[in-house]
Amino acid sequence: MTLENLQALLTPQIEEALKAFIDSMDYGSSSELSEMLRYHMGWESENASGASRGKRLRPLIALLTTGAFGEYPTKALPAAVAVELLHNFTLIHDDIEDQSPLRHGRPTLWQKYGTAQAINAGDALFSIAQLSMLDLAKTCNQYAVLDASRNFNRMCLHLTQGQHLDISFENQTEVSVEAYKDMIAGKTAALIAFTASLGALVSGQTETEYQKLSEFGEFLGLAFQIQDDILGIWGDPEVTGKSAASDILTHKKTLPNLFGLAQCPEFRPLWQKEALTEDEVRLMADLLEQCGVRNQVEAEASELTTQAFNMLASVFPKPNDYSEALYEMTGLLLNRKA
Amino acid sequence: MTLENLQALLTPQIEEALKAFIDSMDYGSSSELSEMLRYHMGWESENASGASRGKRLRPLIALLTTGAFGEYPTKALPAAVAVELLHNFTLIHDDIEDQSPLRHGRPTLWQKYGTAQAINAGDALFSIAQLSMLDLAKTCNQYAVLDASRNFNRMCLHLTQGQHLDISFENQTEVSVEAYKDMIAGKTAALIAFTASLGALVSGQTETEYQKLSEFGEFLGLAFQIQDDILGIWGDPEVTGKSAASDILTHKKTLPNLFGLAQCPEFRPLWQKEALTEDEVRLMADLLEQCGVRNQVEAEASELTTQAFNMLASVFPKPNDYSEALYEMTGLLLNRKA
Repeated sequence: MTLENLQALLTPQIEEALKAFIDSMDYGSSSELSEMLRYHMGWESENASGASRGKRLRPLIALLTTGAFGEYPTKALPAAVAVELLHNFTLIHDDIEDQSPLRHGRPTLWQKYGTAQAINAGDALFSIAQLSMLDLAKTCNQYAVLDASRNFNRMCLHLTQGQHLDISFENQTEVSVEAYKDMIAGKTAALIAFTASLGALVSGQTETEYQKLSEFGEFLGLAFQIQDDILGIWGDPEVTGKSAASDILTHKKTLPNLFGLAQCPEFRPLWQKEALTEDEVRLMADLLEQCGVRNQVEAEASELTTQAFNMLASVFPKPNDYSEALYEMTGLLLNRKA
Repeated sequence: MTLENLQALLTPQIEEALKAFIDSMDYGSSSELSEMLRYHMGWESENASGASRGKRLRPLIALLTTGAFGEYPTKALPAAVAVELLHNFTLIHDDIEDQSPLRHGRPTLWQKYGTAQAINAGDALFSIAQLSMLDLAKTCNQYAVLDASRNFNRMCLHLTQGQHLDISFENQTEVSVEAYKDMIAGKTAALIAFTASLGALVSGQTETEYQKLSEFGEFLGLAFQIQDDILGIWGDPEVTGKSAASDILTHKKTLPNLFGLAQCPEFRPLWQKEALTEDEVRLMADLLEQCGVRNQVEAEASELTTQAFNMLASVFPKPNDYSEALYEMTGLLLNRKA
């Protein structure tokens, strides 16, 4: 079976489980709280549709790594649901921290319900994610559940470290490439590393397999983020839905821009201008290409993807449908256009 | 031993365990994140002292109920630490949601580090609280740890429900006494009910003992909150450190004010004035007394305290030092002046 087949089979089950778990909680007389969570998850009100939701790729990774070890993929379902809920909790709080007005084309939760209620709804979703992780006791023994919960919360702490750095960067004129990589390791890669490792945990593999899958997820997460950075400058506006070279326009401290500041003498004076014209933005993107930054960043993403492939090959020397789907997903994420 | 003796013995151990746990976490390159948590806990920078901390009563309750069952009280220490960290996480987010500038006479975390970093530091503390709860595996079997974590997170969700109501009340002109009690049951009583029940959980008591201790904590928490409401109107400004009848001045929807609105015809027209003079505030407090509201609310607090005493007597028919200390604390909380 291809990734497409497995995705068609598993994604509806993930969506159903997410809904069922959120709806099974006791909200007492605070029905609006449950409405807020359903709105954020893309199930309720304005333009609620597939397009208003994320792709649920993280829980899919957990189910695929579980299936790749010969277990029923849904053995990891409570943990996969926990990961997706946790991811959505971070989105609710990130949107407040970044003051973002829109997500998936709809008003963000704080825009619709106010900052105070949105902070609180995020906290509620964090608790619900924890409860879903503990629900792994339905499919796994208690040692596995405790390990999963412990690693889950260590990962959550790592996420807040990455987020701490990301917020700090806004007030720093100079950010090193090293600090940037530290930030994305926490903010993006930690969650994907954890979700990939769930297959090993749920199917009782050794610590070695667990570590390898976790590294696979980390490489994948880093490659994913760097590809995002590439699209933020060289992505096709018609496909990304953003303006051309939007990460230059908004002075976002992404990897290509940081390389440009370090390596292209002509890039920096333009970067220091507060408002940039369309022509300047185009010129700066060209400068990055001429300085070799585009090649350099693309090579990094490609190298990380290769490392992810190698790690998969080392864990699953005899490929099966699920591990093949993981290969396919890894390749697709590097070659995506949006 | 009296409460005072046990408190002198246990509180330093609680403080030490809180510090050790927060300091044992891996903050990577985000050392400011750890500094923020230490600042909030009252261990670092401006006026860091005993007065800049809470009284750590919640973890003390967990240790006392554990000791009262004949266990070493510190068997509950990781869970008690989790409860105090969770409580502090809610304070960090509450201060943002209420836009409070000061706590224990020092700038709140968001005032000092900005809203974005404070939301994130709260999230970090929430994760650390979860890890401490899971650390109960050092003193208890894995079934107890899973039960504790599950109940802990159900309680967290209940807290966010209470907080949701509390925030909603700000935009409501009419709040029913029933809705108010629902709010404080979540916002104040749920955490104290959970912390009281830990003694039964940690020492492997039956579900009946667990439920009774939880109810003891709920009565105690409700009595505590209503006593707070009484002090917010009739407390001595010299002792509370707040202005006279400050809850009337700030139009806070507390129990005496809600009773006043429902029962004193002369109270409502004054309440509807946006700015109140000192004389008007004094008159309104007097009106509440004349309408019998003060007696009524004091009777409620007293009745709840009696129910808390009864519940204790039913769990510990043969008193011991620890259960006696719990009695003493229950009585003191009702008779406190600030």
